[in-house]
Amino acid sequence: MAKFDVPKEQWAQVVEKSGGPVVYKKIPVQQPGPDEVLINVKYSGVCHTDLHAMMGDWPLDTKLPLVGGHEGAGVVVAKGELVKDIELGDYAGIKWLNGSCLACSFCMQADEPLCPHALLSGYTVDGSFQQYAIAKAAHVARIPKEMDLEAVAPVLCAGITVYKGLKESGLRPGQYVAIVGAGGGLGSMAVQYAKAMGLHAIGIDGGEEKGKSVKELGATAYVDFMSSKDLVQDVKNATPDGLGPHAVLLLAVSEKPFQQATEYVRSRGSVVCIGLPAGAYLKAPVFDTVIRMISIKGSYVGNRQDTQEALDFFGRGLVKVPFKTVGLSELQNVYDLMKEGKIVGRYVVDTSR
Amino acid sequence: MAKFDVPKEQWAQVVEKSGGPVVYKKIPVQQPGPDEVLINVKYSGVCHTDLHAMMGDWPLDTKLPLVGGHEGAGVVVAKGELVKDIELGDYAGIKWLNGSCLACSFCMQADEPLCPHALLSGYTVDGSFQQYAIAKAAHVARIPKEMDLEAVAPVLCAGITVYKGLKESGLRPGQYVAIVGAGGGLGSMAVQYAKAMGLHAIGIDGGEEKGKSVKELGATAYVDFMSSKDLVQDVKNATPDGLGPHAVLLLAVSEKPFQQATEYVRSRGSVVCIGLPAGAYLKAPVFDTVIRMISIKGSYVGNRQDTQEALDFFGRGLVKVPFKTVGLSELQNVYDLMKEGKIVGRYVVDTSR
Amino acid sequence: MAKFDVPKEQWAQVVEKSGGPVVYKKIPVQQPGPDEVLINVKYSGVCHTDLHAMMGDWPLDTKLPLVGGHEGAGVVVAKGELVKDIELGDYAGIKWLNGSCLACSFCMQADEPLCPHALLSGYTVDGSFQQYAIAKAAHVARIPKEMDLEAVAPVLCAGITVYKGLKESGLRPGQYVAIVGAGGGLGSMAVQYAKAMGLHAIGIDGGEEKGKSVKELGATAYVDFMSSKDLVQDVKNATPDGLGPHAVLLLAVSEKPFQQATEYVRSRGSVVCIGLPAGAYLKAPVFDTVIRMISIKGSYVGNRQDTQEALDFFGRGLVKVPFKTVGLSELQNVYDLMKEGKIVGRYVVDTSR
Amino acid sequence: MAKFDVPKEQWAQVVEKSGGPVVYKKIPVQQPGPDEVLINVKYSGVCHTDLHAMMGDWPLDTKLPLVGGHEGAGVVVAKGELVKDIELGDYAGIKWLNGSCLACSFCMQADEPLCPHALLSGYTVDGSFQQYAIAKAAHVARIPKEMDLEAVAPVLCAGITVYKGLKESGLRPGQYVAIVGAGGGLGSMAVQYAKAMGLHAIGIDGGEEKGKSVKELGATAYVDFMSSKDLVQDVKNATPDGLGPHAVLLLAVSEKPFQQATEYVRSRGSVVCIGLPAGAYLKAPVFDTVIRMISIKGSYVGNRQDTQEALDFFGRGLVKVPFKTVGLSELQNVYDLMKEGKIVGRYVVDTSR
Repeated sequence: MAKFDVPKEQWAQVVEKSGGPVVYKKIPVQQPGPDEVLINVKYSGVCHTDLHAMMGDWPLDTKLPLVGGHEGAGVVVAKGELVKDIELGDYAGIKWLNGSCLACSFCMQADEPLCPHALLSGYTVDGSFQQYAIAKAAHVARIPKEMDLEAVAPVLCAGITVYKGLKESGLRPGQYVAIVGAGGGLGSMAVQYAKAMGLHAIGIDGGEEKGKSVKELGATAYVDFMSSKDLVQDVKNATPDGLGPHAVLLLAVSEKPFQQATEYVRSRGSVVCIGLPAGAYLKAPVFDTVIRMISIKGSYVGNRQDTQEALDFFGRGLVKVPFKTVGLSELQNVYDLMKEGKIVGRYVVDTSR
Repeated sequence: MAKFDVPKEQWAQVVEKSGGPVVYKKIPVQQPGPDEVLINVKYSGVCHTDLHAMMGDWPLDTKLPLVGGHEGAGVVVAKGELVKDIELGDYAGIKWLNGSCLACSFCMQADEPLCPHALLSGYTVDGSFQQYAIAKAAHVARIPKEMDLEAVAPVLCAGITVYKGLKESGLRPGQYVAIVGAGGGLGSMAVQYAKAMGLHAIGIDGGEEKGKSVKELGATAYVDFMSSKDLVQDVKNATPDGLGPHAVLLLAVSEKPFQQATEYVRSRGSVVCIGLPAGAYLKAPVFDTVIRMISIKGSYVGNRQDTQEALDFFGRGLVKVPFKTVGLSELQNVYDLMKEGKIVGRYVVDTSR
Repeated sequence: MAKFDVPKEQWAQVVEKSGGPVVYKKIPVQQPGPDEVLINVKYSGVCHTDLHAMMGDWPLDTKLPLVGGHEGAGVVVAKGELVKDIELGDYAGIKWLNGSCLACSFCMQADEPLCPHALLSGYTVDGSFQQYAIAKAAHVARIPKEMDLEAVAPVLCAGITVYKGLKESGLRPGQYVAIVGAGGGLGSMAVQYAKAMGLHAIGIDGGEEKGKSVKELGATAYVDFMSSKDLVQDVKNATPDGLGPHAVLLLAVSEKPFQQATEYVRSRGSVVCIGLPAGAYLKAPVFDTVIRMISIKGSYVGNRQDTQEALDFFGRGLVKVPFKTVGLSELQNVYDLMKEGKIVGRYVVDTSR
Repeated sequence: MAKFDVPKEQWAQVVEKSGGPVVYKKIPVQQPGPDEVLINVKYSGVCHTDLHAMMGDWPLDTKLPLVGGHEGAGVVVAKGELVKDIELGDYAGIKWLNGSCLACSFCMQADEPLCPHALLSGYTVDGSFQQYAIAKAAHVARIPKEMDLEAVAPVLCAGITVYKGLKESGLRPGQYVAIVGAGGGLGSMAVQYAKAMGLHAIGIDGGEEKGKSVKELGATAYVDFMSSKDLVQDVKNATPDGLGPHAVLLLAVSEKPFQQATEYVRSRGSVVCIGLPAGAYLKAPVFDTVIRMISIKGSYVGNRQDTQEALDFFGRGLVKVPFKTVGLSELQNVYDLMKEGKIVGRYVVDTSR
């Protein structure tokens, strides 16, 4: 096993029991296995999923005690004997999918996120809210040296996820996509990816301020659900022929926006569901769905190829992510703000403080 | 306009007011326009949709008075001046889609069933429950001379519809499809089409008798919802790796079968909805749909290409449709049986009596 | 038949015998059939194909006497009784595909350009080098009122053709396409369409001046075959991982560029052939094509949907076509320049002079 | 590392210098690495590629000394510490692709055969002409216990390769595929796979005997190039509408069959090239390829998913492979017969003698 000088101990934020809080403490640094790398995490984005994991909100148990975090950007400092295509000193990213078996029928078809043996960073294995994190080498994001590790961190989950959703929509350049929640953290990235992919984005969100920001990011149109008298008609009118967008990206799936989406999407169009509100349901009238041949698709996180593509768009300067950086030691404060719904954009933690 | 000798008057079954009944009477024979043909209908299948149309069940008005019917097989006896590729004497079929504009964005992409100007046989224009029916030449099914007009009639709607659903599922030969309602009229055709397309069909229906028939038609497995203790698990177990079928064809979409389908379908799989129960809703948990990347798709009727392909499988003897023939004059009796749920297989009416 | 006031006679350029020249003379104005429109052509682009047609270069006979031209932009002044979705006064475009049967297996699958009964403007039927031209209504390009008829004319063939080629390549946004002949008339449009579709264009052509222009139009890189010591390696090096572009657009297929394309294209990539040099052959080594799973594809002209999409990109200002306008009466001069290889960009003729 | 009792030495056929012959001798048994398995090869198919490898026919160097063979079926007797989804005693197959990096852009997109770091059994690493062979665990074929190891051996290369070619063709059930070389070893499997996938196979080969056999295997039609007066027309006539097959599978690409294929394939169709004659070239006229939008595709070997699918069809009894078994010690005799062109069907070697 090749490695740089690595300390025996490190700072980490640890969830010691379901419900939290996180405890900032020193824990041992692990050694990578033959097919793994050890990454000196420099920065890590903070995602709602990290809060869900700490609180135990989802119908899937987490590891305990748990180091959360799945948007970690850093430097490879050790690697196992089987790792050939990564050098010590390379930049690499820890993402939601920490590893997968690479041999099941899903992995064989490049659907690693569906692998039944998938390892999830900050959920079933320790993640990026520590200074040294382990991941399967085949799965770490390859980050080019010219990228800023602080700025790229939020791309590693939020960016990849919205990019994947846009790919799953099956849209071609020149077509229209409605983005529900366009003014939020994921939404603002989705608008930029959509534009970079040659699509027209119709941003949907609430309030004039969000509308201004969404347009500045490149949306063709903005529909304000707070002021719209007929949201379905307004979204349709935002397409030149009035037939509605070819697809919809639902960044927070709740019942009303979902039903509206099935109404304003163009016949033969797709409604792509991404967000994961606990206990929510999709509900749509059969008649209209069949007659208009609408597809409703769940889109989870990206696979390894999606990861590299999403990073490439970021690297070309086409996607900018507004973020605010605080020390890793302040993570609980970020969770507190998140619970209160006070976060706009993305928080990044700096593991050096 | 070229034509054979055609009488001025003919027998037809006419819906004079919404709710029925049908009235068997003599009405004038129409003349085809420049892009139309006149077909001497010999046989016509009777579909639940015809009953829905008479009863005014759907949220779309019918023409009144109305000649129903959209599974008509017959002989071309007159044609307009623009019709070049059909000769008098050719066999042709009247199907649900009587005509479409051929110029809108849907028609241009071979999605004629989604054309906003579509003409619907036996619904917005007169259909095949008469001896001489008109259709747009570009839309009539081309029926090879060696086919039996009586046997092919039910293929013109039921056959095409299930074949289209199987195409929409995106399945590849060798994969598994669960067919919900496999023992019914549409289901028995779906099982046969699936087999002819190299797929494994898992039939789902109620009762041993249906199970026997479904297996004889070529299903790989049968799951009986009346006797199964855990339908979801039983369907998964019918696939060799236990991960469930790659797609599901829902021939009668109601809430419980739909929810079960989203549970037993394989991750990345498709649930294709075909049936149109009045007022029904799809409902699925967001979490599972997203995490497992499931697609829910509405599939309506086939386009013109699907029609020819569905007929081709029938012509090769790979799909047999059990039917019973009565005179056109007895149509109301067929509707009465249908209302009572007493029909197994398909009824065909003979327009000569 | 609805119509505006239309004169009985008009000016046209007529090929009276194979080999030319064109004769500028008055000829009668035709009447549209039931499914046709009559277009008052205002401007028409001039394409190499028009010269090939006059000279009889291709293995397919032209109509004689012949009015050439297939990039005609104008105003609808008369229409047949079946034409519902076009109004008198609408803008419309005559393109290479004047009409097709709309009922054969190719038309049914939206591949109208492959229809065995296709009518070709300025080749098998009279085209746009006259003041009043006829076309099948279903096939004329729908041109929005806000477009400039003079500027849009060259899009109707050249623009659609390169856009179609890019679609056929199967590229996704973010991928690389090499464009061979990027500095020419088609090439400069291809570079702009590629950029608008979120692709990286690698322009290939000869000379520094072309390189400058290609870069200004948005190409990511330029490779000059006149100065390159190793073209294959240089093109590969223009992609970040050195594996070569995901596809190649060959705007003038001749043997050497074709062979080079099969060498520098990435494994699993596509080489799309568009140009039609008389008598040319594709030639590629079997071993490399198989081992690297390369696809070689012919791409002809766009279908109706491609047409509307290509116009949409133009309408959004994303594709600019440099052109020079002369009177229709000067058409022979344009052909003479073309024969001498002296044309850069596109010529447009004004039918009013 | 888990393992059964394994001897230190074993019998193998070793190529000691390019050009051969093979030497039957005892060599040491290797130990698997952490991500590898050791397979006790019971049977191995013999492929032309093995002869090419021994003779050094291809523009890619082999390992020396070399143990050839890449169709090995056997039992897993040892495995490395990282191998989780394979148990000792499982059946497994050695195929052409012994391993790949699983992390490059090709591997990430399930195109492992294009991996630049691919290990090739019996070419760049030792293969299956020995009693104990090593392979990367992620790459060995998973062979169900109910399969006959002797019969399945030839499927591991020949079967997978033709199945992959059929998938690459893009054909849908009900369409027509011409199979050039249908009477040979690969061809006879291709005909059976085509039928199992719901396709119509048109077999093309020479002689009445081959025709009889091709028809018995399920081909819809047979065209004999030895007796046909107009092969192109005869192949077109074998499709009901006379437009030709939707795709062509070229199992031995040489210039004349290739050119004919581009002539009889339907417009928009695919010509899939599989065979690898040393130094051969594809050559096609540009005009026809473009105007008819034909695709020419190279298809190499299957990926891991293709492997499992191809085995599944075999396991269902839909593909039977005629073979003859001899002792491993007789391998040189098989090569001698191969050089003389005297082999019909497939030879399998039994490693126990």
